[in-house]
Amino acid sequence: MRYYSYDEFLQDVKSLIKRIDEDFDAIVAISRGGLTLGHFLGEYFDIRAVYTINAIGYEGQKKLACVTLANTPDLSCHKRVLVVDEIVDSGDTLQQVMDELKSKFPDIIYKSAALFYKPSARYRPDFFVQYADEWIDFFWARDLHDTHD
Amino acid sequence: MRYYSYDEFLQDVKSLIKRIDEDFDAIVAISRGGLTLGHFLGEYFDIRAVYTINAIGYEGQKKLACVTLANTPDLSCHKRVLVVDEIVDSGDTLQQVMDELKSKFPDIIYKSAALFYKPSARYRPDFFVQYADEWIDFFWARDLHDTHD
Repeated sequence: MRYYSYDEFLQDVKSLIKRIDEDFDAIVAISRGGLTLGHFLGEYFDIRAVYTINAIGYEGQKKLACVTLANTPDLSCHKRVLVVDEIVDSGDTLQQVMDELKSKFPDIIYKSAALFYKPSARYRPDFFVQYADEWIDFFWARDLHDTHD
Repeated sequence: MRYYSYDEFLQDVKSLIKRIDEDFDAIVAISRGGLTLGHFLGEYFDIRAVYTINAIGYEGQKKLACVTLANTPDLSCHKRVLVVDEIVDSGDTLQQVMDELKSKFPDIIYKSAALFYKPSARYRPDFFVQYADEWIDFFWARDLHDTHD
């Protein structure tokens, strides 16, 4: 288990931004994990159209059998959409989100971005920063529980 | 203009959490401003149902004449929903979001939370931490542009 701090996030988002060498007119963040990243990228690129899609895998099973999507945003006014998540682990979530968006809005150009990517994932994001080889303990899940202050 | 750092945010979210003395089964974050706060609160309260609604005020005018809402989430499975934004300034956005949600899902109990609240706003959030008296430069809008590192 590896703690991933806000400072590290900031450096990685800066690296990610350098890799994202094209323009987008909307961002779709996968909730919950991609929310903070989507917020920061929307602010940086001055994209007000930051949407989310809910992806919830069945819990209590070692392997996620299925990912349930909900609240697909209306992208009908957009041409180039960046889909973001914090980590692409099995790739199941990102694959299903991309399939859903392409199916509902087939004329849009989609790219995807994540902070972490596990090479064994079945979907490789177009832009990513680090390879993940262990469980990441993100600051948004940890820092509020910190009892040092 | 006041810079609002991640560390200050963390302290304030901890204060906000202490004030939120009831349970919710879903969070609706107002995009973009409420995204990071919604993410942190969802993680803390272990609420996977973190949704968003898009509120975009007309730009280029001194006063926002109107707020356009889009992508109202499906809350039909929920009973108690917390609506979050980073700041309640005029109150127009939060008022319209609450009206929209209550109109579409009238049987839900709604509460609202924000980090900052301006006393002149026409909608007072149920939970907030600080009074806002100047423009807040949030870390999510500033830190990526920091050229010190």
